[in-house]
Order: sequence, then structure tokens, then C-alpha cells
Amino acid sequence: MSGDNKIRIGVMSCTNIVRKLSRAINLAPNATIAAIASITTSIQETKSFAASNGFPPTVKIHSSYESLLEDPDVDAVYVPIPTSLHLEWVIRAAWNGKHVLLDKPVALNVSDFDLIVAACESNGVQFMDGTQWMHNPRTTKINELITDSESFGHIKSVHSCFSFAASETFLKNDIRVKPGLDGLGALGDAGWYTIQAVLLANNFKLPKTVTALSGPVLNDAGIVLSCGALLSWEEGVTATIYCSFLANLTMEITAIGTKGTLRVHDFVIPFQETEASFTTSTGTCVNDHKVMTELPQEACMVIEFARLVGEIKNKGTKPDGFWLSISRKTQLLVDAVKESIDNNLEPVFLSGR
Amino acid sequence: MSGDNKIRIGVMSCTNIVRKLSRAINLAPNATIAAIASITTSIQETKSFAASNGFPPTVKIHSSYESLLEDPDVDAVYVPIPTSLHLEWVIRAAWNGKHVLLDKPVALNVSDFDLIVAACESNGVQFMDGTQWMHNPRTTKINELITDSESFGHIKSVHSCFSFAASETFLKNDIRVKPGLDGLGALGDAGWYTIQAVLLANNFKLPKTVTALSGPVLNDAGIVLSCGALLSWEEGVTATIYCSFLANLTMEITAIGTKGTLRVHDFVIPFQETEASFTTSTGTCVNDHKVMTELPQEACMVIEFARLVGEIKNKGTKPDGFWLSISRKTQLLVDAVKESIDNNLEPVFLSGR
Repeated sequence: MSGDNKIRIGVMSCTNIVRKLSRAINLAPNATIAAIASITTSIQETKSFAASNGFPPTVKIHSSYESLLEDPDVDAVYVPIPTSLHLEWVIRAAWNGKHVLLDKPVALNVSDFDLIVAACESNGVQFMDGTQWMHNPRTTKINELITDSESFGHIKSVHSCFSFAASETFLKNDIRVKPGLDGLGALGDAGWYTIQAVLLANNFKLPKTVTALSGPVLNDAGIVLSCGALLSWEEGVTATIYCSFLANLTMEITAIGTKGTLRVHDFVIPFQETEASFTTSTGTCVNDHKVMTELPQEACMVIEFARLVGEIKNKGTKPDGFWLSISRKTQLLVDAVKESIDNNLEPVFLSGR
Repeated sequence: MSGDNKIRIGVMSCTNIVRKLSRAINLAPNATIAAIASITTSIQETKSFAASNGFPPTVKIHSSYESLLEDPDVDAVYVPIPTSLHLEWVIRAAWNGKHVLLDKPVALNVSDFDLIVAACESNGVQFMDGTQWMHNPRTTKINELITDSESFGHIKSVHSCFSFAASETFLKNDIRVKPGLDGLGALGDAGWYTIQAVLLANNFKLPKTVTALSGPVLNDAGIVLSCGALLSWEEGVTATIYCSFLANLTMEITAIGTKGTLRVHDFVIPFQETEASFTTSTGTCVNDHKVMTELPQEACMVIEFARLVGEIKNKGTKPDGFWLSISRKTQLLVDAVKESIDNNLEPVFLSGR
């Protein structure tokens, strides 16, 4: 793809996740970093960040998000700012005609997200959340296998967990433990992944009920540091999730069908960047699968995002609503777990939501 | 060990599990099959069963359980009869001075089990339940690793499941789906293992509460075919279990500590008889472990049972209460899950039980 046809992405902030995503954009053949805006660093510091992360020399440096969003040489923005700021800045981006790649959780709650959706739809901009593992080629393979009724049958039970042992500094200072910033804590962060995993295993069908499990751990400000939940569909199909900032790194999916079982041990971030494995089994017959990944999963995500944006920009098509619908379902379930925690672990019925 | 010193075991019934245990007794150097009693087969059929399963030619054939229990040449009995018959026959065995290896679930409920315990204690007989995987050398190794606070830290979350896809015939006719026989269904059978797994991971400490998860599947007679439960300890330590007759064979333990994670994929019956594997990880560093098992786990169980019986028989020591205490805790938790299912999924508080 010639340089002119690449989707020009503007990134917001100079955080670590921007380092990772910038590398991914550089690796993606259909995208380029066109601009950066940082409001917490000086122009000089931002320039230095851009240089040390391999941004093209032509990159524009903005000192405000407004200025980035008004830049006519930017097609799309990557928005990794705290969740409490998503509503304002994604709506502004949409009304400026910028396509949006937004970090999870997508909003503080689903009604905020619906305002984001409305803004994106009104302006015909593409939306995608930044859940990288969903774009790993392994995930495509997993999806094929668990929707194969011959080998997997139909789903009966899923368990997914994502935990990591956060440092004392993280538990004191990270935006993910601050009510004014990422108020959903471990649930909006680690829990987001586990909820998308159980949705994937259920072909993205919403459960009937969501019930938080007893024993959630909250910090003094009431932010979830660790919790679990049960999701229930019809006919005894169930899923449990567990997410935590307080336990050793664990990233599991165990999905059990009537005929097959799937196990993944590193679903969020594969232990190796260039290959990703999982196992399936039927009875005592176990198969190990390995999927080679030429590019890291975050680059695959950028490529897919830029492809969708390219369809709109170059062919005048409408935005693809698939990823947006998954973001909304995930946010709905995150909200439901939170509601159940806040409501003495009562089940939350999702009908009509 | 000379033939004279071997613990002489009498087995009850001619079922498939007796085939498996007879092989185990034959493999155990400190035990021998001294007698068999079957009330559903003719003497000739029982003789033929004995011959085709490698019983010693000297084995005595009894046509009633009473007669077996009165046999002075029997030290101990293996009792794999339906759960509803445990109370009567284990109490009779104990009062006849026979040590007891009893299949799980040990009773229909813990108050029945307490009568069994009282009978065993009154008569100084050794009790052990027939949960084979607890005697696999791998389980010893697992126990060492998860109680190592240096590498594992302390437990935060455990998930264990045991499911298998029962045939239509099983779901119609097996004793495990009949109210009058094994009325605890999948919970007393598959669930028993998962509960012992989460107890093991919690150093056999009882949880504070047990809550059945929504979505249990019952048959027309009200027997559990599939269910899940949450077990909660102090400070947010939780475990979830899932057991089912309706899903593909899956036998998982995922135990997450503050510093380490343990994963076992075949904890109930290892995929291979002569070796058993598991993995541990800390952060992204994963270690595969393999434990060689010279004898199958059921033979290890018989050896341990016969060793304990031998201590009493030959040295006059008192019965060892360790295995009995674990059986009681497991039964207590099985009961609690059932109580929660019967009581609209309300939590069951275990304090004082």
C-alpha cells in the first residue's frame, strides 16, 4: 500500500500503552502515525517520546486533544486515556469525523457508551475497542473450533480468569485503582477480557443473568481489586469469571462443550509473540494447537481497524458495527457485575438491556 | 511382605469398579483379595468374575454381605455399593471389626456419615474413602508446591471442574441418576472430586460459605446432572466448582496463589497410567512437571489403606483420622451445595458444622 493510502492515526498521550500501539501501527502496512497529542508533557518531551518510539519524522505534535481532533491530516485516533474521559473525547472525535480505536473499558457504564455509539453513528465513523487478543489469529482459530458442532458440540460451561499481581505502587497510584479515573478497577481492566472470552465461547450471545460471586475485594475508595461472577444462559449453560490485581499472572479460558473442551493458558497476551498455542480434547484424546503469528496481535488489531477505516474512506461504505456491538455487550456485562456487587450480590437480569 | 502379613480384603459386588480395585489390590504388595460377596449374581457367576479378574484361587465366595462381614479371614472390606446402602453396611462392617475402604460419596448426608464415623471409632477400625487421585504421587507433589509460600504465595482462587458426557443408557439407568441409590447424582460423583481439589488447594480448611450457582440441571426425579458452586473463605479467597454428566470429559484444577499458579488437566484419572503431569507458573515463566507413577493411583490408594490397617493389626495403634476428616469435610460441602440448590441458591454458612 502506498504511503498516501495508509490510514493516518493520531495517538493521544505518551503512556506505555502508546509505546506498544505505536510499534503496532509502525508494523501495520495499512496505517501510519500521523500525529500525537499529549497534555501532560511539554512539546519537547512529546517530540522526544515520538522520536524514541520510531514515529515518522513527519509526525505532527499537538499540545491539546482539541487540536489533534481538528487536524485534517488525521483519519483516526487511538484513545488510551482514563475511562472517565472517554465520553467527552470520543464524542468530540466522532463529531470531528475521526474514526476511533478506544481502549477498554469503553466507558464508565453502558449508558455513557450509548452516547458514544450515537456520536459514532451520527458521524459515520468506525469504532473499535482496543482488546488486542480478539485480533490474534489464534482467536480466529479458537472461534472456528468452538463453533464446530461436529467436534465441539454445543457449549455447556466456560471459566475464564485474568489475574496479575500488581505492585504496591500500582495499587496505590495506577489510574485503574482511582475512582475519578478508571472507576471500574480490576473488573473494567482484567475482567473485560474474561467477559469477552466467555462471550466468544457463547457465540456472543448475552446471558440471561449475571451474579457477582461473594468475596469481591475493594480498596478503601470502593474500587474493585478482585472479583468473580457467574453468567447464566438457558438450559444450564454457565460461565464463571475471575479477575484480580492481587494474584499471580493467570490468563485462562476453559470452555467445555458437549463433545469437546478448549483450554488456553495465555489468552490475553501470548507467552510468545510469534506463536500462540491452545489445546482441544475430546474424551482422553488431547490435541495441541499452535498458531504462528507473523505480527504481534496488537498489529493485527491495527491492521483490521485501518482496513475498516479504509473501506469507509476509500469506498464510502458504512462503518462495520461488529466490534461496536461486542464492546457494548461487554460493557453491559461489566456493568451487571458491578451492579450485582453494589446490590448485595443479587442476580442482574439482562432481558431488554 | 510375606503372604501372611498382607491385609486381607473382602470386596462387595461384581461391578466394574471392583474389577479396577481388584487389579489394584493384586498390584499392592501389602494387600490381597481374601473374599468376595455378591448378592446380585449366582455363586457360579461370582466365581467366574473372581477367576477372570485374577483373584487368588483361595478366594472365598460369599453370597451375602453378612457372611462376608463375619468371615474371620477378612481384615477389611472394599465397599463400592450404592450410597443409600453405605450407612447400613459400613456400620455393620465396623461392628464386625472390619476396616473400611468406602467409595464416594461416603453417605447421603453428613449426619449419616457421622453415624458411620461413630461406628468406626467405637470399633477402632480404619476408614478411608475411595478417592483414588488423592493417592497419586502427583497429588503429593502438588500439595508440596501449593503449600510452599516462597514459590506459590498464598491461595487466592481455585477453579475445578469434572465433567463427562454420559451415554443415554447411563442417564436412564445408572445408579448415579436414581434417587433411591446415589441420590446426590453428579454432585456426589463428579462434584466430590472437585470439592476435594479445592479443599486440597486450601490446605483442607473449610470455607465460610457455600453457594450453588444458578443453572443446575436436574433430571425428572430431581437428581443433579450438572451444577456449579462457589466456596468462599475469608479475605476474598474463593473457589468455583463445576460438575456435570452432560459435557465432554474435563478434569481441571486451576489454583492461583499470590506468587504462583498451578494447572492440572487430568486430575481425576491421569491420561497416562505411568506418568502424571501438571504445570506451575510464576509470571510468564511456565514449568512443566512430570511425576512418574510406578503403580496406578488406585494401587497407591490400596497400599496406603493396607499400611494404615497394618499399623492397627500388627502394632495395635489407633486408626489414623486424617482421611476420615477429609471425607467428612467433603461430604459437608457436598451437602451444602445440595442445600443451596434446594434452597433457591441461598448461601449456606458452614460455621459450627
